[in-house]
Amino acid sequence: MLKDKLSPNVETFLCCDGSYDDAGLVLFGAPFDSTTSNRPGTRFGPRAIRSESFGIESYSPYQDRDILDVDIFDSGDIELPFGDTERALGAIEKRTGIILADEKKPLMFGGEHLVTLGAVRAMAQKYPDLHIIHFDAHADLRDEYLDCKLSHASVLRRCHDLLGDGRIFQFGIRSGDRTEFLWAEGGHVKTRLFDFHGLRETVEALREYPLYLTIDMDVLDPSVFPGTGTPEAGGVTFVELLGATLLACSGQNVVGADLVELAPAYDASGISTATACKLARELMLAML
Amino acid sequence: MLKDKLSPNVETFLCCDGSYDDAGLVLFGAPFDSTTSNRPGTRFGPRAIRSESFGIESYSPYQDRDILDVDIFDSGDIELPFGDTERALGAIEKRTGIILADEKKPLMFGGEHLVTLGAVRAMAQKYPDLHIIHFDAHADLRDEYLDCKLSHASVLRRCHDLLGDGRIFQFGIRSGDRTEFLWAEGGHVKTRLFDFHGLRETVEALREYPLYLTIDMDVLDPSVFPGTGTPEAGGVTFVELLGATLLACSGQNVVGADLVELAPAYDASGISTATACKLARELMLAML
Amino acid sequence: MLKDKLSPNVETFLCCDGSYDDAGLVLFGAPFDSTTSNRPGTRFGPRAIRSESFGIESYSPYQDRDILDVDIFDSGDIELPFGDTERALGAIEKRTGIILADEKKPLMFGGEHLVTLGAVRAMAQKYPDLHIIHFDAHADLRDEYLDCKLSHASVLRRCHDLLGDGRIFQFGIRSGDRTEFLWAEGGHVKTRLFDFHGLRETVEALREYPLYLTIDMDVLDPSVFPGTGTPEAGGVTFVELLGATLLACSGQNVVGADLVELAPAYDASGISTATACKLARELMLAML
Amino acid sequence: MLKDKLSPNVETFLCCDGSYDDAGLVLFGAPFDSTTSNRPGTRFGPRAIRSESFGIESYSPYQDRDILDVDIFDSGDIELPFGDTERALGAIEKRTGIILADEKKPLMFGGEHLVTLGAVRAMAQKYPDLHIIHFDAHADLRDEYLDCKLSHASVLRRCHDLLGDGRIFQFGIRSGDRTEFLWAEGGHVKTRLFDFHGLRETVEALREYPLYLTIDMDVLDPSVFPGTGTPEAGGVTFVELLGATLLACSGQNVVGADLVELAPAYDASGISTATACKLARELMLAML
Amino acid sequence: MLKDKLSPNVETFLCCDGSYDDAGLVLFGAPFDSTTSNRPGTRFGPRAIRSESFGIESYSPYQDRDILDVDIFDSGDIELPFGDTERALGAIEKRTGIILADEKKPLMFGGEHLVTLGAVRAMAQKYPDLHIIHFDAHADLRDEYLDCKLSHASVLRRCHDLLGDGRIFQFGIRSGDRTEFLWAEGGHVKTRLFDFHGLRETVEALREYPLYLTIDMDVLDPSVFPGTGTPEAGGVTFVELLGATLLACSGQNVVGADLVELAPAYDASGISTATACKLARELMLAML
Amino acid sequence: MLKDKLSPNVETFLCCDGSYDDAGLVLFGAPFDSTTSNRPGTRFGPRAIRSESFGIESYSPYQDRDILDVDIFDSGDIELPFGDTERALGAIEKRTGIILADEKKPLMFGGEHLVTLGAVRAMAQKYPDLHIIHFDAHADLRDEYLDCKLSHASVLRRCHDLLGDGRIFQFGIRSGDRTEFLWAEGGHVKTRLFDFHGLRETVEALREYPLYLTIDMDVLDPSVFPGTGTPEAGGVTFVELLGATLLACSGQNVVGADLVELAPAYDASGISTATACKLARELMLAML
Repeated sequence: MLKDKLSPNVETFLCCDGSYDDAGLVLFGAPFDSTTSNRPGTRFGPRAIRSESFGIESYSPYQDRDILDVDIFDSGDIELPFGDTERALGAIEKRTGIILADEKKPLMFGGEHLVTLGAVRAMAQKYPDLHIIHFDAHADLRDEYLDCKLSHASVLRRCHDLLGDGRIFQFGIRSGDRTEFLWAEGGHVKTRLFDFHGLRETVEALREYPLYLTIDMDVLDPSVFPGTGTPEAGGVTFVELLGATLLACSGQNVVGADLVELAPAYDASGISTATACKLARELMLAML
Repeated sequence: MLKDKLSPNVETFLCCDGSYDDAGLVLFGAPFDSTTSNRPGTRFGPRAIRSESFGIESYSPYQDRDILDVDIFDSGDIELPFGDTERALGAIEKRTGIILADEKKPLMFGGEHLVTLGAVRAMAQKYPDLHIIHFDAHADLRDEYLDCKLSHASVLRRCHDLLGDGRIFQFGIRSGDRTEFLWAEGGHVKTRLFDFHGLRETVEALREYPLYLTIDMDVLDPSVFPGTGTPEAGGVTFVELLGATLLACSGQNVVGADLVELAPAYDASGISTATACKLARELMLAML
Repeated sequence: MLKDKLSPNVETFLCCDGSYDDAGLVLFGAPFDSTTSNRPGTRFGPRAIRSESFGIESYSPYQDRDILDVDIFDSGDIELPFGDTERALGAIEKRTGIILADEKKPLMFGGEHLVTLGAVRAMAQKYPDLHIIHFDAHADLRDEYLDCKLSHASVLRRCHDLLGDGRIFQFGIRSGDRTEFLWAEGGHVKTRLFDFHGLRETVEALREYPLYLTIDMDVLDPSVFPGTGTPEAGGVTFVELLGATLLACSGQNVVGADLVELAPAYDASGISTATACKLARELMLAML
Repeated sequence: MLKDKLSPNVETFLCCDGSYDDAGLVLFGAPFDSTTSNRPGTRFGPRAIRSESFGIESYSPYQDRDILDVDIFDSGDIELPFGDTERALGAIEKRTGIILADEKKPLMFGGEHLVTLGAVRAMAQKYPDLHIIHFDAHADLRDEYLDCKLSHASVLRRCHDLLGDGRIFQFGIRSGDRTEFLWAEGGHVKTRLFDFHGLRETVEALREYPLYLTIDMDVLDPSVFPGTGTPEAGGVTFVELLGATLLACSGQNVVGADLVELAPAYDASGISTATACKLARELMLAML
Repeated sequence: MLKDKLSPNVETFLCCDGSYDDAGLVLFGAPFDSTTSNRPGTRFGPRAIRSESFGIESYSPYQDRDILDVDIFDSGDIELPFGDTERALGAIEKRTGIILADEKKPLMFGGEHLVTLGAVRAMAQKYPDLHIIHFDAHADLRDEYLDCKLSHASVLRRCHDLLGDGRIFQFGIRSGDRTEFLWAEGGHVKTRLFDFHGLRETVEALREYPLYLTIDMDVLDPSVFPGTGTPEAGGVTFVELLGATLLACSGQNVVGADLVELAPAYDASGISTATACKLARELMLAML
Repeated sequence: MLKDKLSPNVETFLCCDGSYDDAGLVLFGAPFDSTTSNRPGTRFGPRAIRSESFGIESYSPYQDRDILDVDIFDSGDIELPFGDTERALGAIEKRTGIILADEKKPLMFGGEHLVTLGAVRAMAQKYPDLHIIHFDAHADLRDEYLDCKLSHASVLRRCHDLLGDGRIFQFGIRSGDRTEFLWAEGGHVKTRLFDFHGLRETVEALREYPLYLTIDMDVLDPSVFPGTGTPEAGGVTFVELLGATLLACSGQNVVGADLVELAPAYDASGISTATACKLARELMLAML
């Protein structure tokens, strides 16, 4: 009788320990950072988010909702091979595909931003008219970087390869190569510099389409989110990002999302991880 | 003659080394963190504030006043037993009582937020019509936490036990259990979410009452104050907190105060401690 | 079919994910540090050991054995109330008792050293002739500390209360109050200063008795193990501690053990946690 | 043929590796911090800026210009003697003089703020009607500090000795001794507290004069720039400082500038250095 | 005349700034860590070694020799693509080949241990009877790791593919998969566990052959060298490694060498980098 | 009555709070580091030692003595001007002179090693036949460093200027310029490389002379003492240094001493400060 108390140690994101079958949203981690060109370490992001999630409450005073009210399942991290980018993307695509096949919404914790490509491959197959809303400090629109096509610096360009013109809407961008901005202006991608101006109109305009929301958390100001590989001064506040995230989800057409680029080792104070946890909670509640 | 130069090493908060008899304000530290449920370490807060206070000026350009112009006495830290919460609170109550008996104002440096209960016990005895203004990220209104009545998460609830309805006014709150907010809304405590909106009206309304001001410095945004046990994204700026603090003191009816929840070990840059020192200077000047 | 891939996230010490029924050794964490008088933080020890265990190999070249060859079950951390020492000890005693009732050996990861008392209470009930081998920098023999009977500084004294004279054998001790040493010399406890000299003879002499092995990892030199609350210069090397640990287990009469006092936050390099993981692997293999 | 690939390791600020003769702007580092009275370490500032500059892009979306479009030469750090302040200032004056003699603009990376005096000595000789725009948290107007005339806390006062009344315009100041502010108000220096209000008018009014722009980066809020010796709560944001910097340069009469007081060791996250790099890029582009 | 003082900023390892033509030893960095499976960051190793080398003296009291007495050329870091392992190895092989073609000895600073493979490919072409002396905590003999043939955990196995049986001699090994040790014992590689016992005999026996010396600095105890991706308790002291290094070079037949696996970000104290610098100085002097 | 409990905050080294008149040993801090050429920060050494001394016991099991048994007075830190070396040395000389005039022994906590010169000036005046025993990693015998005569790298050379040949005995030295060693070998100073071999004979030979013992704690291995400006691999263990210290004091003719070069900011784990505290305790007990 006492024995059944000694069950194996299950560790999930705060309160996301229900049944897979009931869950409308399924979490997973993609601990990959092999193409990171500056400071690596986002591979430890998902683990840190899960572990530190117990420092926040399950209740959100912003939305007056509680994680305990909804059904979310944390399926753990995918084991990804370092140094073999294509295989890692394949594994991410597969996990995303399983979740979609079960008619659930995936929420992925990165890892570097390239992991988004794996998820978007599965999303685009499920939702051919998928549109992407992208929050980031960096445009990530290079055609290649250090001669590689598969790079964190190219991830939205690769998504464009899949989806085509007019499908990707970027906000908060404040860094990039000149050629990236010129290419975007050629009508391929809509890029809003520095802030979220125009997001409301975009969300309105895309109301009929399935949306994928990819949040590179370095869109936040480095003061708020120092734990990332390439901090870029002049970012948005947490409250601004939270508002934009809730706005993006307001049409209830976000069918998948990710939070990427937390590299916890660069922030010994832990505020970056705590911020990621809170953003995750808000995003999860807003998606359901 | 030379000999008297070699006096023992006295260490006080910046310039607070006058005589006890002349002092209108008396500082002390309450290095206690035994009920902290997340990251401990606020026990080192008072020591750090005292030690780093020499990095700021004694003059405030915000108030155009100087610590050198006023009489403040730093009576050092209380020695508190770890693991025996009730006895620790008793010692804090006693120190506060001595200061009040001498018709001086106490200013306590925490420690975790529960230390406020010790001080408020003495304050409420001296000032039966005491009201509390409370700045914090967390509501701290749980009736119990992990089955404990005496917990940092319950401290304002315990103060309510002493003072009753309508005496506690919270600002900046952005985290809590749903039940805490529901209980507060039952008319027991006035809780303002996220910011200081309504503080001016509150201060006006309480002009005739003695006030105790308790500042949990995690009301600040984690970017400004990472050195705390439970950083909570989306807080106020230093300038906002400074303004609110000066406003709370503007009626000259603050008869006691505390600054709590600095855990210096989590912020190797030292900006949290420096911020606490500056806030302490401003609060001290505003209280006199 | 794909669905069963999405199981909840189980996280155990390296390869200790078998069935409880088969296991001869059962791990658990006791994340408690409320009586710590110096730098707190050992509450994060078990979580860190589990999480970082994937950085070591399952194979030991020291013993030419592999964790994969044996059956060990990681039952996770006990949820312990902060600030209520007696209740925390009760929970530890209960968990230890369950494991012993199932005729398995417990291995506990602390937490502060006081957690040993909880385990020893259960051990002494099961094995009335229990003897303790104790590796530590500190004697931990105070009758009380800051007026508390239940303190990390008193834990072996409290064990002596349970077991009586001649049952406790300390090695590596290099710090304590003078009264502790005098008391020990009164015939109550056998204390070897600085090193493991005499351990072989002790192990021989105790061959017929059940042993509990408690390892306060601060017995290691602070250079090897900086991640602890009270580093004490002049300690043993890892190789010396490993040798002593294997020696203590050589009679196959160690029926329970613990590894305590890892406070990972004080060692950003992670070498303390890595050392604890390796010591845990060796101890686990040696106990079976 | 292959051999010439193996050239010595040249390390410059991002893309500032052209020819000295073509360059309109010449960088150098002044790694000196001997008079720092609080936390030392700005000596490592120039090296960190140069090394981390590769984490930012050469293109600025704020100005739509690229470092690759202009000619800038990084002449490395001056070797400065620690503990001999006058000799260090002499070496800085000499390097600045060489650059000015070649009709180029100097941009110096500190080092503590006192290094500005060395540069201003050379600037004032070249441009007798030099005016200074000064961004800082601290007034730096003491006549002496700890009995020293040459101190980081006196640097603008010493510049005033050279230039006289009405030549120095300070912005963002939020810390100082009362006597500093009183002296400034005596008509010697124009001091704007807390922010950049009035900068536009100042820039307009000084349109006919050569300007030296000295930016003590601790004018930034400590959350944005923790890596400095004396963090002072309540500072400006990066976007505000960027705007003020571009405004100061808008008349194209800035003939020399410096960025000082980065002490990278106090900010393990690296955001302070990244911020300094970005500010340097923007300043360089704006000066040409 | 003054102008030529303003030369571009050349940064080399301490005093290694002579002419390439005169140099008998040529340094280069291989900043690559894409296959690192645990904590990444060795990409910053070469930069840190170069930058911190100025903290040590050029004179060695161990060998009574001075870097100033010999001719060494630091050719800087190779720019390596992240995520494309084969291409990175190719670039390393090419750089090594250039140095060898000019009849000089290469000394490479890693980077993760896999970079050794690039160098050994060139070495083996130049010296068909090349033998390898290998100091390491880890055997690195896996045939593949996470399904990859090119991995830090397989690097010596890949070297064995090139050189064949009886050519590789390992010392200090204290971690590995059981299969690695079994394979080595099959006569392929000579593995000495834990220490340098037998090194003298090995050096004697190989006196007629050209040697490549590869030093994974994690052979050092983690207390001495915490700044590495996978610290492994129980390593050798600096004095032991220094002695072994000088012994390995004593036959004057070391024709190339490397120092790998410094990950400076994990050691904020900088002792790992300082240790690497000193070891580099000693190795350079011993090779010439 | 209650009032006298509120005395000002006195902070001394552990239990060194008796009366000046009774004390045989007087402590003081010399927080100066202006000539440090590598990483500064020893100015924070004395403060850290005092503050962290409460983490060790007052009883020494090495000497079976207790600080409580002896009379020691901590006179606090001298306020020293940064950047004015000569004046700082004067202040140290004066404080030392006061202590000597009162027939007490001074024990100084540095600061950088140059502070020793200030103390030795006073010591040599009181004791014309003073001899110095010097433990250090660095010879510190340069005639000048960066053109300065007063430098941490020249401190023992300056002491030689005062005392002449045959008075200084160095142990543990493992770094220096070749010229320093050549000069020492010229009969001026006796330098033992690497360890304490010959110390016993030296102590015997100097039994009739007053001794000053100066311990640069970087003689310790960097693993034991990472918190110093210039860590130098290959040092002694704590136990070796402790033994040498007790040996040096064994003749009861040590009339003054210092512990220098702790720079606590470089060691976030705090083991360096804890080691300094323990060494201080042992030295204090051994000197009385």
